[in-house]
Amino acid sequence: IDEHDKRFIVSTLQGVNPADISTLLLEFSTEDSKYVLDILDNETSAEVINDLDEDIRAKFLKNFESAEIATMLNELDSDDAVDIINELPLKDREEVIASLDNREKADNILDLLRYEEDVAGGLMAKELIKVNENWSVKQCIEEIRRQAENVEKIYSVYVVSDTNKLIGRVSLKRIILADDHIQVKELYEDDVIAVETYMDEVDVAEIMRKYDLESVPVVNVQGKLMGRITIDDIVDVITELAEEERQMMAGISEDVEEDDSVWMLTRARLPWLIIGMFGGLLGAQFIGVFEKDILLVPAMAFFIPLITATGGNVGIQSSSIVLQSLASKSVFDNSFVKRMTKVILVALLNGIVIAGIVMGMNLILGQDLTLALVVSIALFGVVLIASLMGTITPLILDRFGINPAIASGPFITTANDLLGLLVYFSVAHLLYSNL
Amino acid sequence: IDEHDKRFIVSTLQGVNPADISTLLLEFSTEDSKYVLDILDNETSAEVINDLDEDIRAKFLKNFESAEIATMLNELDSDDAVDIINELPLKDREEVIASLDNREKADNILDLLRYEEDVAGGLMAKELIKVNENWSVKQCIEEIRRQAENVEKIYSVYVVSDTNKLIGRVSLKRIILADDHIQVKELYEDDVIAVETYMDEVDVAEIMRKYDLESVPVVNVQGKLMGRITIDDIVDVITELAEEERQMMAGISEDVEEDDSVWMLTRARLPWLIIGMFGGLLGAQFIGVFEKDILLVPAMAFFIPLITATGGNVGIQSSSIVLQSLASKSVFDNSFVKRMTKVILVALLNGIVIAGIVMGMNLILGQDLTLALVVSIALFGVVLIASLMGTITPLILDRFGINPAIASGPFITTANDLLGLLVYFSVAHLLYSNL
Repeated sequence: IDEHDKRFIVSTLQGVNPADISTLLLEFSTEDSKYVLDILDNETSAEVINDLDEDIRAKFLKNFESAEIATMLNELDSDDAVDIINELPLKDREEVIASLDNREKADNILDLLRYEEDVAGGLMAKELIKVNENWSVKQCIEEIRRQAENVEKIYSVYVVSDTNKLIGRVSLKRIILADDHIQVKELYEDDVIAVETYMDEVDVAEIMRKYDLESVPVVNVQGKLMGRITIDDIVDVITELAEEERQMMAGISEDVEEDDSVWMLTRARLPWLIIGMFGGLLGAQFIGVFEKDILLVPAMAFFIPLITATGGNVGIQSSSIVLQSLASKSVFDNSFVKRMTKVILVALLNGIVIAGIVMGMNLILGQDLTLALVVSIALFGVVLIASLMGTITPLILDRFGINPAIASGPFITTANDLLGLLVYFSVAHLLYSNL
Repeated sequence: IDEHDKRFIVSTLQGVNPADISTLLLEFSTEDSKYVLDILDNETSAEVINDLDEDIRAKFLKNFESAEIATMLNELDSDDAVDIINELPLKDREEVIASLDNREKADNILDLLRYEEDVAGGLMAKELIKVNENWSVKQCIEEIRRQAENVEKIYSVYVVSDTNKLIGRVSLKRIILADDHIQVKELYEDDVIAVETYMDEVDVAEIMRKYDLESVPVVNVQGKLMGRITIDDIVDVITELAEEERQMMAGISEDVEEDDSVWMLTRARLPWLIIGMFGGLLGAQFIGVFEKDILLVPAMAFFIPLITATGGNVGIQSSSIVLQSLASKSVFDNSFVKRMTKVILVALLNGIVIAGIVMGMNLILGQDLTLALVVSIALFGVVLIASLMGTITPLILDRFGINPAIASGPFITTANDLLGLLVYFSVAHLLYSNL
């Protein structure tokens, strides 16, 4: 296809969705892709670039001049443009912004660059449709027609006061259905839900999900309308958060995918493996203290995996249940004490069942009674401790602003392995020395 | 508040968002809540009910007559109404549907009930705005005004042929901006993305995310327009899928939350704990075979947790990376062989680093050279096997239509514990018997 047959390429890609072209480009070399993008019109190639994966886009953009990037950014909404600028090397950013010939767009972008990427201000776009409360429906429709040229999708029309304070919203449907001479003042609903520029993206997502919003206006501390966040950005936020959580639960320390390089994949996986390894070595040192007990009752060693595995499983279950509550921001009328009482009750139930079955199995299998007792008592203790650890750790991490998902990963397993061994060998030492 | 002061309650809740009333009701008794819902107008109480959590809603609806439920369903979109009907006990369903006085709504609901809940047909609503290709803009606007009364939010206006085949879409913006006499035929875009009624919800979500759609039309096999799916439903799907995955990764077998009963929480957690327990007992039996080796070299027992923990960590990392690929449906030009080559390369790198550090540490700590060798060789083997297992298992599960997230949970840890012990003791047995 790439024998530089411009007309053929253009006609083939005519009408193809930019998202599909992006997928297609993944199979081309960077050079060929640039060639294709060059001959497509600016709007299409801007959208294709916008739909690419972050790391692939970074590779692509290295081959473009600042002026070329600027031309494409001109075609994008300010929020997408800012995302792309944020991915550029620092030295290129100013050059690209300086090359933007649309001054308004450049100002918008500079404005948005002030915000962190993970707060409402970093998600919002400046493009929106707003009307003044004192306008008539006729004026509105004219204004909306004018403004609509810059706005890709109209969701809500925001109503502002003379000082640009957000005071309400009115649906396009309502404006269309209304008579021309009515004033916006009589038409708008004042129960508009807005978020502040510095609200965390997780909270914004939760608000939009709770109230089923497709877009939410963003206001600053003075209540002035600064921009709007659309649901497609929130879908991306939710998807990314789920990915991040999955990686944390699996003990992967960087954002990697299967098609990243061997080196990147190794680098992302080693840190937690090494932490787990040191945990294992510490465990070895610890069991070493009880070498004499093991020589006396070698069967004690048999149940080490049972103890550590149970501790790990219980710990992860507990922390993931807390994670669920934290993620859905469900209201807790429960006090900390009530919460803990429940955790302990569940742990007691689980512990009794597990310890009971193991006791029975060990006796059936003809294991020594004392050892069977040691194992079951230790298991019961491990279930209890792992439940408490698994519940408290994510709560503490969350309090300190650390992503609590980390508590469901190798961290909790390693900690519980060590605690489990401590309990097991303590119980064993006590029971055996008392016999 | 609840001294039956109707006027006070109504005036207080006036203008409060239904989603907020739902949250408020959680703190009331079921009886008080019913009282509040009874005095609110039908539309508001329908939305409040719609915003409630599934299990709480089920409790609430037990106190309502079929006719009362039907009145509320009348106010909801057909997709939400169907969700609520699906939660009712079988015997009540027909009664509620029979009580619906709006025949069109009842037909729509009966139609939607035919679909599974997790396919496009089960997510879609029948309410949508459609225009015939042969209409003029003026006719369209009139029709849209009429249809808009039943449709909560207009996203796209769908264009159909005389036989109700979906042939394109036209934005409301475009209709407003166009002259009255133009025909839809000249205005609409024919590159509309649609999904078929039996498409899986995961695929629908991915399509809407990829193309940044706020709504997608649903067609049957003949291409006829059946309904539309809106982005708020997809946000719920994505959130639920993430929750489901979190639970599977944590080995929780039912959809539970922290505020469920102690009994439910226990029931959700026990199955995997018991499976893990049997794994542990099997491991104990297995180590028992090597009792003599342990008596000879008790230090061998020290490293059991290191071996099992490393196997577990590597296994979960590997499977979660595959999970990521499966979730994002990323295109793989990679063949199975390429994929495996990469997995093995990463495993080799990780294995060498981990085995190397452990070797060094063991020598520094004055451990016996043979044992140090055994542990390092076994670790290397465990990293390799756990990587392969962790990669292949989710792929196989996915092939058989089982949620591959289960492979990142206790399943993989238990399997890897056993495999790890097998490798460790085999290596030890070999090396020691050869010395």
